[in-house]
Amino acid sequence: MATQIITLTTDFGQSDSYVTQMKGVMLTINPNVYFIDATHAIPPQDVLRAAVVLTELIDAFPDGTIHLAVVDPDVGSNRRIVGIEVGSQRFVGPDNGLFALVTRRVAPDRIVQLTEKAFWRQPQSATCPIANTFHGRDIMAPVAAHWSLGRDLIEFGELIDGLLGDVSHRRPHKVSDTIIGEVLWVDRFGNLITNIEVSDLPKPITDCLTVQIGKRRITGIHQFYGQQCEGNFVATIGSSGHLEIAVNRGNASELLQVGVGQALRVFECESAEDE
Amino acid sequence: MATQIITLTTDFGQSDSYVTQMKGVMLTINPNVYFIDATHAIPPQDVLRAAVVLTELIDAFPDGTIHLAVVDPDVGSNRRIVGIEVGSQRFVGPDNGLFALVTRRVAPDRIVQLTEKAFWRQPQSATCPIANTFHGRDIMAPVAAHWSLGRDLIEFGELIDGLLGDVSHRRPHKVSDTIIGEVLWVDRFGNLITNIEVSDLPKPITDCLTVQIGKRRITGIHQFYGQQCEGNFVATIGSSGHLEIAVNRGNASELLQVGVGQALRVFECESAEDE
Amino acid sequence: MATQIITLTTDFGQSDSYVTQMKGVMLTINPNVYFIDATHAIPPQDVLRAAVVLTELIDAFPDGTIHLAVVDPDVGSNRRIVGIEVGSQRFVGPDNGLFALVTRRVAPDRIVQLTEKAFWRQPQSATCPIANTFHGRDIMAPVAAHWSLGRDLIEFGELIDGLLGDVSHRRPHKVSDTIIGEVLWVDRFGNLITNIEVSDLPKPITDCLTVQIGKRRITGIHQFYGQQCEGNFVATIGSSGHLEIAVNRGNASELLQVGVGQALRVFECESAEDE
Repeated sequence: MATQIITLTTDFGQSDSYVTQMKGVMLTINPNVYFIDATHAIPPQDVLRAAVVLTELIDAFPDGTIHLAVVDPDVGSNRRIVGIEVGSQRFVGPDNGLFALVTRRVAPDRIVQLTEKAFWRQPQSATCPIANTFHGRDIMAPVAAHWSLGRDLIEFGELIDGLLGDVSHRRPHKVSDTIIGEVLWVDRFGNLITNIEVSDLPKPITDCLTVQIGKRRITGIHQFYGQQCEGNFVATIGSSGHLEIAVNRGNASELLQVGVGQALRVFECESAEDE
Repeated sequence: MATQIITLTTDFGQSDSYVTQMKGVMLTINPNVYFIDATHAIPPQDVLRAAVVLTELIDAFPDGTIHLAVVDPDVGSNRRIVGIEVGSQRFVGPDNGLFALVTRRVAPDRIVQLTEKAFWRQPQSATCPIANTFHGRDIMAPVAAHWSLGRDLIEFGELIDGLLGDVSHRRPHKVSDTIIGEVLWVDRFGNLITNIEVSDLPKPITDCLTVQIGKRRITGIHQFYGQQCEGNFVATIGSSGHLEIAVNRGNASELLQVGVGQALRVFECESAEDE
Repeated sequence: MATQIITLTTDFGQSDSYVTQMKGVMLTINPNVYFIDATHAIPPQDVLRAAVVLTELIDAFPDGTIHLAVVDPDVGSNRRIVGIEVGSQRFVGPDNGLFALVTRRVAPDRIVQLTEKAFWRQPQSATCPIANTFHGRDIMAPVAAHWSLGRDLIEFGELIDGLLGDVSHRRPHKVSDTIIGEVLWVDRFGNLITNIEVSDLPKPITDCLTVQIGKRRITGIHQFYGQQCEGNFVATIGSSGHLEIAVNRGNASELLQVGVGQALRVFECESAEDE
């Protein structure tokens, strides 16, 4: 049987063995699974950040890839656990907003609540009957592994109409012609990834579109950092379709002294004159 | 030939290339090996922490998995290097206490001191004849790779009766009916993992078992964090069989302002009245 | 088809999804590729550090391994992107000095500038036509994946005579018989890896070779840390052929209070008397 790819996106870090326990459980079910660690450095319980990462993966992976996402602040509550088919890609995780951005971009084909306990990991009664439950390892990982073996999604539970989890409280809003957003993430190079997506911008995107962050104004959207001189600010659209602020060979976050949560505004040049 | 899993547990971090050199050596011997990085974030030379991680892996992985563990403060001394069969799982590493907890839980079937130099990596005389020796790469990794090819453990050296390495100085002790332990590890979410194992607790584990850490008392052992209200403390048994202190949707380490080494006591409720 | 190994050495860290996007692109081209993450913790834009890591890999990996290295401060400029054959090993990345140390050690067999756009990733026009370009994902990763499928290097562009990228400004120099170098890297254990290579040292390497770093003098080059007593300083040649300063069971960086950039001198004992 061909190798089946499962990516992992979690807030578990790499110092504990939680991720490794999940991998062991999946390899026990399907020895041919091949893991790609998308990232385990999602800030603890930051569902929105994980939702953005998933949008960055959806275009890059082969058909049939399963993306297992475990950022689960509501473990132990009644939040649902779901499997989703979105085009050629497949997702497993809690229905808490993790999949809100992916499914807003591409409508999901099928969503199934994972209720079929036959596919869950059975308690390891021999060694420790009272060990606590870890849904990532005991429900999500085994279902992902069984799915990778060729089963149909519907076998794992019941079709549902839509997702409940949302992250729309963190979406940009509009005041007259100005889009008001915020910085979602600062990457390793100090680039600022915002919550403003290409679909939020006026079309066609003109050269005179202006981004204002703090007192800094940046005009135009560019495709390469190198299109600006060294040290100049540049606005680009990142691979996830989010507006980003960068500095050619510099660190935008440090130069502007801004971080996650910083507000920014986008407007067309003519409206800039009204400011 | 089927893929053969080798997990890696080290204190090498991920900024240096030590782990990668070991992987290259193993792939040169067995191109079908599949690595799972358990963790490389063991604090430098913290043998006990690595010993606990190994107990977390033993139940999760398929039969025949090889767990290669390199936390080796005594490299260059005469400490032995061993291969161990424990049920369906296999272990390779220095005999310095790394395997003390795994073999206390499940008695080892065979232990072999790895003395057969035919399986060691030969010095790379061509490029650098005086390069220093790195036992993880030059002895442990090649033996693990050869073992994964289907050789019998006994080919790699001599059967020995037992392990010398121990971590029992960090085990809990008992004063009358009170178990006195300590915090071994703080995970990424602030959960406190202790050195008290389920086998140290009175049986049956009653609802009135009480954990005292600092001035905080927590009564009962629960299976889900969610069984307590948000912000409440909860005592659970983690997947390694260790007693853990957590806060539902909170950070126990921050709330209690305690870390590794913090003492805690466990007693049954009636004896609590004696305090 | 057999598994094909691709190692990755980048300054992308593990919190962003850049590495994962590259992996997805490569798996889409060759589903049998097997990734080894050498390290993603190269300090941002530190080409020399990455160049040293590549020298540490070249002896450890099977024939035909492809080493993909993306530390690319000049992205967007006219720096070339190259594929290189060096003995049995293959390299892909920007020609900015990344490969200067590997090719100084072993002369490259062929160097090809990667100009053949047929192998590049096409823009994902459907979802985001104006997304910015990421050469690691859009040029280097796809070429590495196509190369791993068995194509000949020459198919990806044009043969060139040599590399332009260099890191020689960071090489040691000689003042009479004293070699003057610097600390390139401090590893996780506080060992100091220097820019002095075994080929820079006088041959034969005598027992009276002396290293001076700050006021500390260390005499002799040893093969094991354990050849010195606990707490003693020791000079060794690391697996990359670089001179290293360590402390047996201690942290040389902390004890000497030195870090990256610290100068050091190496001389033979007789010349030491001249000091």
